[in-house]
Amino acid sequence: MGIVLKDIQAVLPRDGQDMVCQTDIYLQDDRIVGIGEEPEGFCEERVIDGKGRLVIPGLINAHTHSYMAIMRNVADDLTFEDWLFGHIEPIEDKLEPEDAYWGACLAILEMMKSGTTCFSDMQMHIHQTSRAVSESGMRAVISRGLVGSGSNEAGQVRLKEAYEEQEAWKDCPRLTFFLGPHAPYSCDEDFQKIVAQEAARNHMGVHIHLSESVNEVENIRKQYGVSPIALAQRAGLFEGLAAAAHCVHVDDEDMDILKKCQVSVITNPASNMKLGNGFAPVPDMLAKGINVCIGTDGAASNNALNMFHEMNLLALIHKGNRQKADCVSAREIFRMATIQGAKALGMEQETGSIQVGKKADLAVLNLNTPSMMPGNDLLAGLCYSANGSEVELVIIDGKVTMENGKVLTMDEERVYAEVSRICRRLKMTKA
Amino acid sequence: MGIVLKDIQAVLPRDGQDMVCQTDIYLQDDRIVGIGEEPEGFCEERVIDGKGRLVIPGLINAHTHSYMAIMRNVADDLTFEDWLFGHIEPIEDKLEPEDAYWGACLAILEMMKSGTTCFSDMQMHIHQTSRAVSESGMRAVISRGLVGSGSNEAGQVRLKEAYEEQEAWKDCPRLTFFLGPHAPYSCDEDFQKIVAQEAARNHMGVHIHLSESVNEVENIRKQYGVSPIALAQRAGLFEGLAAAAHCVHVDDEDMDILKKCQVSVITNPASNMKLGNGFAPVPDMLAKGINVCIGTDGAASNNALNMFHEMNLLALIHKGNRQKADCVSAREIFRMATIQGAKALGMEQETGSIQVGKKADLAVLNLNTPSMMPGNDLLAGLCYSANGSEVELVIIDGKVTMENGKVLTMDEERVYAEVSRICRRLKMTKA
Repeated sequence: MGIVLKDIQAVLPRDGQDMVCQTDIYLQDDRIVGIGEEPEGFCEERVIDGKGRLVIPGLINAHTHSYMAIMRNVADDLTFEDWLFGHIEPIEDKLEPEDAYWGACLAILEMMKSGTTCFSDMQMHIHQTSRAVSESGMRAVISRGLVGSGSNEAGQVRLKEAYEEQEAWKDCPRLTFFLGPHAPYSCDEDFQKIVAQEAARNHMGVHIHLSESVNEVENIRKQYGVSPIALAQRAGLFEGLAAAAHCVHVDDEDMDILKKCQVSVITNPASNMKLGNGFAPVPDMLAKGINVCIGTDGAASNNALNMFHEMNLLALIHKGNRQKADCVSAREIFRMATIQGAKALGMEQETGSIQVGKKADLAVLNLNTPSMMPGNDLLAGLCYSANGSEVELVIIDGKVTMENGKVLTMDEERVYAEVSRICRRLKMTKA
Repeated sequence: MGIVLKDIQAVLPRDGQDMVCQTDIYLQDDRIVGIGEEPEGFCEERVIDGKGRLVIPGLINAHTHSYMAIMRNVADDLTFEDWLFGHIEPIEDKLEPEDAYWGACLAILEMMKSGTTCFSDMQMHIHQTSRAVSESGMRAVISRGLVGSGSNEAGQVRLKEAYEEQEAWKDCPRLTFFLGPHAPYSCDEDFQKIVAQEAARNHMGVHIHLSESVNEVENIRKQYGVSPIALAQRAGLFEGLAAAAHCVHVDDEDMDILKKCQVSVITNPASNMKLGNGFAPVPDMLAKGINVCIGTDGAASNNALNMFHEMNLLALIHKGNRQKADCVSAREIFRMATIQGAKALGMEQETGSIQVGKKADLAVLNLNTPSMMPGNDLLAGLCYSANGSEVELVIIDGKVTMENGKVLTMDEERVYAEVSRICRRLKMTKA
């Protein structure tokens, strides 16, 4: 299928920076095949009028737990311990695999409608999530959450599950699999070593939570004599492609390790604030040249899966925290939400920017909206003014999956009915 | 005109707290006339089906500069001085009154679409703003921005303008006027005294910027020997109804003055972060019993006029800054955005909550949206998950002003065309 986005404003990479240019963009099958001029032999089947529109690379939500969308607003304004042990874990214990499927569907609806075309998920219900991704037309990296100590059986069973799932979906170009050693407090050093070896052996990326809370860092230092980041390095987890979520409580030495090992950091501003963990030192990481990208975390600790929301937080909070209005820019943040997210997932040759040869993963925004008017600086507007509802068309892997607010690949009403039913069954909904 | 919101979930006040209840709400002319049961003699002209909907009191944006909407994204990621003196003031010097009118129209479009039914504006183009408010069906409190030293002529001319405008609109029930002494660095103590006397003589409220930046507080302390808040008190500005925007850099003594004098504080989280001023001590102010409400500030320092955005920031940033997940709750924040905003404007008997006898100022949200699903806790959802695009119907002063995303009282396309034209003329739009 050939699609032309005709005479449209587009965010394009130019010499390592993003620029807004008026142009035509040609898509054929799953790829961007031309920018500015029509490629030879192009077969036009649909023209999308670019008037009053802006096309951006689809946003990449580099850290979430999609099934948790059913737990949105089930436990808020609580301390971390009360939230996790008093509320979230008791619900997770009662979840059926099918519940996770509908949770993932709800998450995908929200992400797709707000311009996200790829997400990186860590969790245990990977088959149900992969089903939802496959059916919806979304792109995702699925990390099987792994917990274990030494070479215990539970850890081995989960590793096996990860490989089976990878094998099962090997023909779906939109699904990639990582290993997800959960965190240093749930995976001891020996198990981290095993996961590192397995990742190397299978050429898989690693997705881990690191240095999220003060407690975690203190406990790991007590137990191992090093920081969570130094421990993961020692265990070999940073030998290949690796992305670490959070990294809130890190020191210079930690950041030097992350830089040296080319580990990507996924910052989750809403979640880190909501759970009282604080602000990751994002401006310092950027200054060191670390590849920083953005995640929403799960809907139970955010409680939205909207990357515009996250870009906005990121643009504001460090300026507030450092009392320094120029410590991070909208342009830097937009790259974190796009190409830098792709890089964290090992996909920077495939997605994350609008370039000939890349996958057609795009979001088209309506500029005739109050928040995008008068359009003095559209890149700044994406970070400071948009709320995600401006997105009116989404293309993933060359296919239009969302148009005029309607996700074409999913039965939205059915998803709402099912998640409502699950929440009643699990008595999550407050009267 | 009699409107019934039938079988709808509604945020209602119960014993000083907000609760979500399923009910019917009856509106007649400009008022709420019944909740739960039909009042005698009610003349039903329209039924709004409440299925899958939530009605909330219209949000109150207690501090903005509406005309600045045309300067949205014109100068971002800059230090405060570069922003104000290098970019904003040079544009303001070139603004024609008609530019301010179209800026106010754009601001009203954005606010109305995102559920704001009343805003409090401080600025110099009060006639143009009042026109836009009157025509659009919006409710507003307009404060004539005043700057001056002693009894200088410029200050007197502006005071006279404020009274003329108040007189001109005395028959519009949606327009109220305050005096707006700009800030202690632009109004010296003698002029503050004059404004205080004028406010008392005319029974007008006072709207002022106070203690926004470290520099302001240091300079005022040097000049007067007291903080900006103590100075305003000494000048008599807190004798009547008074609302102070910002109050970021305040100490215990300042907060005691605000509490004792019943001054409302308008916190502007996005703006305070964006300009590098920091975080106001909102949890401490709440603990002291100060009436705190919320403003967006102008679109040049935010850059959105969306109260959902502001509620969300407020719910997150203090948890992050204090590393304390329970230091402020969604329920407290929702009250800041509604009834506490009304109180700051002297309107708590008239608007800010859904109660019989109050003005029908309401926003209706579609709950069949990903962000509001599965609806485990709708009040938390309003703060943590909604982005404002869920608002599908707005009623102000008993009249439906927005429905299905369309503002019925304004020509949206015309507004966009005019603001675009202004931005081209003033060369604000980046190529």
